Amino acid sequence: MDKIIYFDNSSTTKPCETAIKYLNEALTANWGNPSSLHSLGLAAEQEVFLARKAVADTICATPEEIYFTSGGTEANNLAIMGAVSALKKRGNRIVTTTIEHPSVLEVMKKLQNDGFDVVYLAPDKNGVVGVDDINNAINKNTILVSIMLVNNETGAVQPIKAAAEAIKKSGAPALLHADCVQAFGKMQIDVNKLCVDLLSISGHKIHGPKGIGALFKRKQKNIHPLILGGGQEKGLRAGTENVPLICSLRGAIEEIGNINHNLSLLKELNSYARQKICESLPEASFNSNEACLPYILNFSLNTHRSETILHYLDANNIFISSGSACAKGQKSHVMTAMGLENRRIDSALRLSFNRYNTKQEIDRFCEVLKNACATLRKA
Amino acid sequence: MDKIIYFDNSSTTKPCETAIKYLNEALTANWGNPSSLHSLGLAAEQEVFLARKAVADTICATPEEIYFTSGGTEANNLAIMGAVSALKKRGNRIVTTTIEHPSVLEVMKKLQNDGFDVVYLAPDKNGVVGVDDINNAINKNTILVSIMLVNNETGAVQPIKAAAEAIKKSGAPALLHADCVQAFGKMQIDVNKLCVDLLSISGHKIHGPKGIGALFKRKQKNIHPLILGGGQEKGLRAGTENVPLICSLRGAIEEIGNINHNLSLLKELNSYARQKICESLPEASFNSNEACLPYILNFSLNTHRSETILHYLDANNIFISSGSACAKGQKSHVMTAMGLENRRIDSALRLSFNRYNTKQEIDRFCEVLKNACATLRKA
Repeated sequence: MDKIIYFDNSSTTKPCETAIKYLNEALTANWGNPSSLHSLGLAAEQEVFLARKAVADTICATPEEIYFTSGGTEANNLAIMGAVSALKKRGNRIVTTTIEHPSVLEVMKKLQNDGFDVVYLAPDKNGVVGVDDINNAINKNTILVSIMLVNNETGAVQPIKAAAEAIKKSGAPALLHADCVQAFGKMQIDVNKLCVDLLSISGHKIHGPKGIGALFKRKQKNIHPLILGGGQEKGLRAGTENVPLICSLRGAIEEIGNINHNLSLLKELNSYARQKICESLPEASFNSNEACLPYILNFSLNTHRSETILHYLDANNIFISSGSACAKGQKSHVMTAMGLENRRIDSALRLSFNRYNTKQEIDRFCEVLKNACATLRKA
Repeated sequence: MDKIIYFDNSSTTKPCETAIKYLNEALTANWGNPSSLHSLGLAAEQEVFLARKAVADTICATPEEIYFTSGGTEANNLAIMGAVSALKKRGNRIVTTTIEHPSVLEVMKKLQNDGFDVVYLAPDKNGVVGVDDINNAINKNTILVSIMLVNNETGAVQPIKAAAEAIKKSGAPALLHADCVQAFGKMQIDVNKLCVDLLSISGHKIHGPKGIGALFKRKQKNIHPLILGGGQEKGLRAGTENVPLICSLRGAIEEIGNINHNLSLLKELNSYARQKICESLPEASFNSNEACLPYILNFSLNTHRSETILHYLDANNIFISSGSACAKGQKSHVMTAMGLENRRIDSALRLSFNRYNTKQEIDRFCEVLKNACATLRKA
């Protein structure tokens, strides 16, 4: 097999060496149960603490504010269900956006069915929700605001801070939750500057393993658990701690290096890709603008359906997606919310990069994509 | 460090070679997202299917009846919350026992607070709940019966089948759930002979990694999901599939070999331990009788508090526990429910074996334990 070109890093990433190394150490040396009272248990507990600190340090939080979960989806479910359960006596309104991940939107749908007044904010044509809309939606009856920091299909960065200010101004009891699965480890996040109470992250988007994530919960704020049992994670998330993947997540974080340095590399790669696509495929239109996080570049060919192109690229060992992996090929709710025309939605392609991707890979991608367009029948 | 003696396998087990091998293969070769439409995703999906089949085969189920979770605790939560949510319009009674794991009992406490009529069956002095009690508790208003197959502190095997018959006789709409975390891979389980609708298992009790478990759900029965999102696990458990640990679980299952053969080895080891303890420590009384699953042997010294002994053994590289790791040293609710006197509860020691433990280890354990009793001040 030729070397593959993998531009689908927002779906999942290849685990990095340090993540694999720490995982194996946990499996062979630190396999005790952190809840056990003997020294094997204690050793495992200490490893878990080091990982907790690594996550905390990345977002300017404290270790005791980090709760490990089985991934970003569970972190989002816990944040939303947990906040609403804790605050339901103080109000009925929940504010979110139409472009959230399904792990947010499906929970919102359930809460709406349960009688909560869920307000969905729509984005503008650039995929960003408006500050005025946020201000108008948040009233004193609001118990939760959940807005993602970086959209997983376009990379559009949302004005989380504006939501924090609106909550403060309104006097609402609302907690502010940000799904940061696509942002964590890729841009500087400071929970205090962002003014969030709850923040979700995932391991497998940053070259860690699938099956591990975490929720930041501000110390002074209270939410209810989703999974009950042996009182692990200070009662907020029961179940024997997933020591191997928790250690592995720490490895992935350590290997990130300098977030700003990586970001500048990605800016350059993204600009290069943008320019190359313009040159090779003049009919293409971009669904990610230059304000988006450069790890994601979404564009539409307007000439060929996404699936047709994906299969052609796949056969050439190039892996990209048409949008979110979790949508499994369904029409993008994000592009739809942005008000894009059907032809553009149906031909959308998402490139999601990692810090190891190269300009040579972009060149090869554009060459194969150009061949695809010349060879395949137009839609 | 001397070679350790580890008799705390009901808390957690050391991951076996095949579990580690499959995990590493998943991390390095099959790291795609099963929800991705390209071939990397498909390859990962195929690996997940093989693991699903391995779990299914172990309990005489079909692969489509297996749903992966983050562990036994989540499987128990999903089974109970999911069943109650699906059936709450058809009745109000839930039947369980006083000796369940906290991941069952804490959910029951919540449901009781929510207004459900939760009936807790107490065990006899051998740690087994009575068939008459089961028959009396299950009425036509019952929507869920949740009884563990093997108790985690004593190894006592519960009469699950009697519950199935009682449900049938009563005409109740109840689903029957069995927490099989301590039984899976250690005794023959056939979901059809056991007549259960829901059955929980965990990876890290059978030399697989922490952080992976599964729920069996009978095809014809319906429960509601606990974690919502991208529709993975046929909508019953959202979140990117934990491919590495799912593959690792398959490795652990493959390495079990012949369950009955292992069981006969364990019977011999257990008898040997029982005899040696009688000889070395005539004041000891057994809290596990000979009908218990031989992987667990619980006894009380009656002379020294559990913690004192645990620390002495720990210093000699021998690891056992006083009860459930999830109880973190709190007074055993299982022993209390069995009606044992305080002195016996406070001095309980749980040996939980694996198929690699030896008679030589039992000899050394008894020798050190005897020294402990001679050296340490009596309680």
